[in-house]
Amino acid sequence: MTYPLLQGLRVVESSAFIAAPLAGLTLAQYGADVVRIDMIGGGLDYARLPRMPQGRSLYWTGLNKGKRSVAVDLRKPEGRELVQALVTAPGPGGGVLLTNIATAWLDHGLLAQRRPDLVSCIIQGNADGSTALDYTVNSAAGYPAITGDGSPDAPVNHALPAWDLACAYQAAFAVLAAVMQRRHTGQGALLKIALADVAFSTLSHLGLLAEAEVLQQDRKAIGNHIYGAFGRDFACADGRRLMVAAISLGQWDALLRTCDALPAVTELEASLGLDFRDEAQRYQARDAIAAVLEPWFAARPRAQAETLLERQGACWGRYSTVRELLHADARVSPANPMFETLDTPGVGAHLAAGATVRIAGEPRQPTPPAPLLGAHTDEVLHEVLGLDGGAIGRLHDAGIVAGPERDPTTQG
Amino acid sequence: MTYPLLQGLRVVESSAFIAAPLAGLTLAQYGADVVRIDMIGGGLDYARLPRMPQGRSLYWTGLNKGKRSVAVDLRKPEGRELVQALVTAPGPGGGVLLTNIATAWLDHGLLAQRRPDLVSCIIQGNADGSTALDYTVNSAAGYPAITGDGSPDAPVNHALPAWDLACAYQAAFAVLAAVMQRRHTGQGALLKIALADVAFSTLSHLGLLAEAEVLQQDRKAIGNHIYGAFGRDFACADGRRLMVAAISLGQWDALLRTCDALPAVTELEASLGLDFRDEAQRYQARDAIAAVLEPWFAARPRAQAETLLERQGACWGRYSTVRELLHADARVSPANPMFETLDTPGVGAHLAAGATVRIAGEPRQPTPPAPLLGAHTDEVLHEVLGLDGGAIGRLHDAGIVAGPERDPTTQG
Repeated sequence: MTYPLLQGLRVVESSAFIAAPLAGLTLAQYGADVVRIDMIGGGLDYARLPRMPQGRSLYWTGLNKGKRSVAVDLRKPEGRELVQALVTAPGPGGGVLLTNIATAWLDHGLLAQRRPDLVSCIIQGNADGSTALDYTVNSAAGYPAITGDGSPDAPVNHALPAWDLACAYQAAFAVLAAVMQRRHTGQGALLKIALADVAFSTLSHLGLLAEAEVLQQDRKAIGNHIYGAFGRDFACADGRRLMVAAISLGQWDALLRTCDALPAVTELEASLGLDFRDEAQRYQARDAIAAVLEPWFAARPRAQAETLLERQGACWGRYSTVRELLHADARVSPANPMFETLDTPGVGAHLAAGATVRIAGEPRQPTPPAPLLGAHTDEVLHEVLGLDGGAIGRLHDAGIVAGPERDPTTQG
Repeated sequence: MTYPLLQGLRVVESSAFIAAPLAGLTLAQYGADVVRIDMIGGGLDYARLPRMPQGRSLYWTGLNKGKRSVAVDLRKPEGRELVQALVTAPGPGGGVLLTNIATAWLDHGLLAQRRPDLVSCIIQGNADGSTALDYTVNSAAGYPAITGDGSPDAPVNHALPAWDLACAYQAAFAVLAAVMQRRHTGQGALLKIALADVAFSTLSHLGLLAEAEVLQQDRKAIGNHIYGAFGRDFACADGRRLMVAAISLGQWDALLRTCDALPAVTELEASLGLDFRDEAQRYQARDAIAAVLEPWFAARPRAQAETLLERQGACWGRYSTVRELLHADARVSPANPMFETLDTPGVGAHLAAGATVRIAGEPRQPTPPAPLLGAHTDEVLHEVLGLDGGAIGRLHDAGIVAGPERDPTTQG
């Protein structure tokens, strides 16, 4: 569900994959009018898996909720001219370009000749403009070496494209900061953000870079343990698993109370000469502590362990698959006001998430589902560029723009 | 390095761990004056690993670059009153609270009585206010089940606290949107964002939730393969590894050219009746394709493979540890304008990252290093609350505030 907070701001998005579309989605969910431009027939990401049997991509429809879609032949000069006109159309709310497709005809300097207060945000792989993806940046950032058991012969990539996410939200933030500044000064801005920089800056912010430089040490792989405190996964009697975390002292005490582990842990502390009130010493003895707790989890089914952990105020989470989550966790259901049911053309009704932030007293509005490609071509050309029916008709006839694709799930 | 973009905006941050401090860091790196409030002696995260031999946390100093530090006894009513006064101090740039520590005395309604246009951003674990951490949210979100080899008995947690990152940047975005709105309407806002919602919304945005609901299928664990296209890690002759990605057709062609694999792959396509121009069909045949490519990587040392991949414009990344990255990758060096050398009290000189975004023509300013705890107590009390030396002295004498801790690396 979207907010009206950024109402009046129009962003033209020429994009593919995750980072740029997710930045656009974020802006859309706060009320911006995000006009996504795609090649007629769809760009690089239009058919990405997973797909409906009739072909619609659940990846594309997930990332393009709440946007308007304009389909243009981007190879034709007239198509490019249209996109340039959309980006630079006058009006206080327009003049924002979000893209990860760096092409000469979307060059900021070129477009700024037509609209000097243009804000362009360009998402790149590397800062020199060369290609990099989440996966190739992640391997360099060192996380696969410390994920899982950390065998040097078998680094483990995480499945979540985390750098794309972080890049998307930083790009949305940067766009907003530049728009705020523009409202104040009248000046536009050219913003560039590289996926590689997103990953490598994180190493600085989380201390791993200084650790490598100043302490001259690499973080070690520690399986499912939490670095720097105590936390790990445990198997219950029914084979299901729980993650528990004891970072704060309150969480640690609650865990020990739940598992009746205080005597055994006190004995362990004494034998090791450690003080587990200090999180770093819990971390040091993590394997021994886990061994003390394991029998408690192994002795009862997960549901019972959850009840007891919850009763003591311990910090725990269930391991689940997405289907299990959807069927058994109220946080992912219409009971959570972040979620609503969208009826997406070519997909049907399904649960979908709006803006994560809850704003007290601020009404959320229904999110329009991801459009069929080109669904808003005519509307946007008329509204933003003032083209009349005849002019739009000629663009269609010349194959420069296209209207909505047929909904693959309907007949006729 | 910081930008002057948000100059004039003051944010009071009462926080611990990653999400809220990283949101504050983001605001600081765009020029906001972020005043971090901590308990005298440091809060929950002040001593988190990794630490210098003399005790300074590289985690804390990484997340608190560019902020001012005020140390207050938060258990004392007078200390709480001071923080409330800092949050609600008049002036157009103040009145922003960022916190993940929900306490009654920082309640938005209470503070808004003193400053009606207050913007409060509260980061929570779960939306109902109950505790959850990155690790316990991640287990529920289903990623450990599809990371690594995906044994149901051995889910693999990723080592990166990705949900904390995504939450931080979304919180920074929300604060900015609310501040923009306030400049326009004069109205404040109470914003709440739950880590769990950050994770579960991502499942919707990336299509996994619809996949589970509409297609009734869970994503499978696929090791280091890239879902939906072709990409995987390969071992070179010297045992070092590379990640390669062939998502776009251009990347796929470049990879085949590099590895002289076109004939073998064409043969494979024919034998399987597939068309590898379609990324989904590359994905379907991923193991067979990888088997074709493996000997090429195994036949040469990594440096040579990199040169050849680069020459053809393939998309690749090296696997490295953070130390290897720091020593051998120019992207993490002073040659990258995002990085600068900070001299952090208690740590010494080290490479640190500023804002990821590059803004054309916008000068970056040096980032002040993370302060010693309480380094700005007196300065902030004077500047923001107008307290004079006598009043500040009495607060010190009564143990309600504290000045800078001693730098643990200096004598005397």
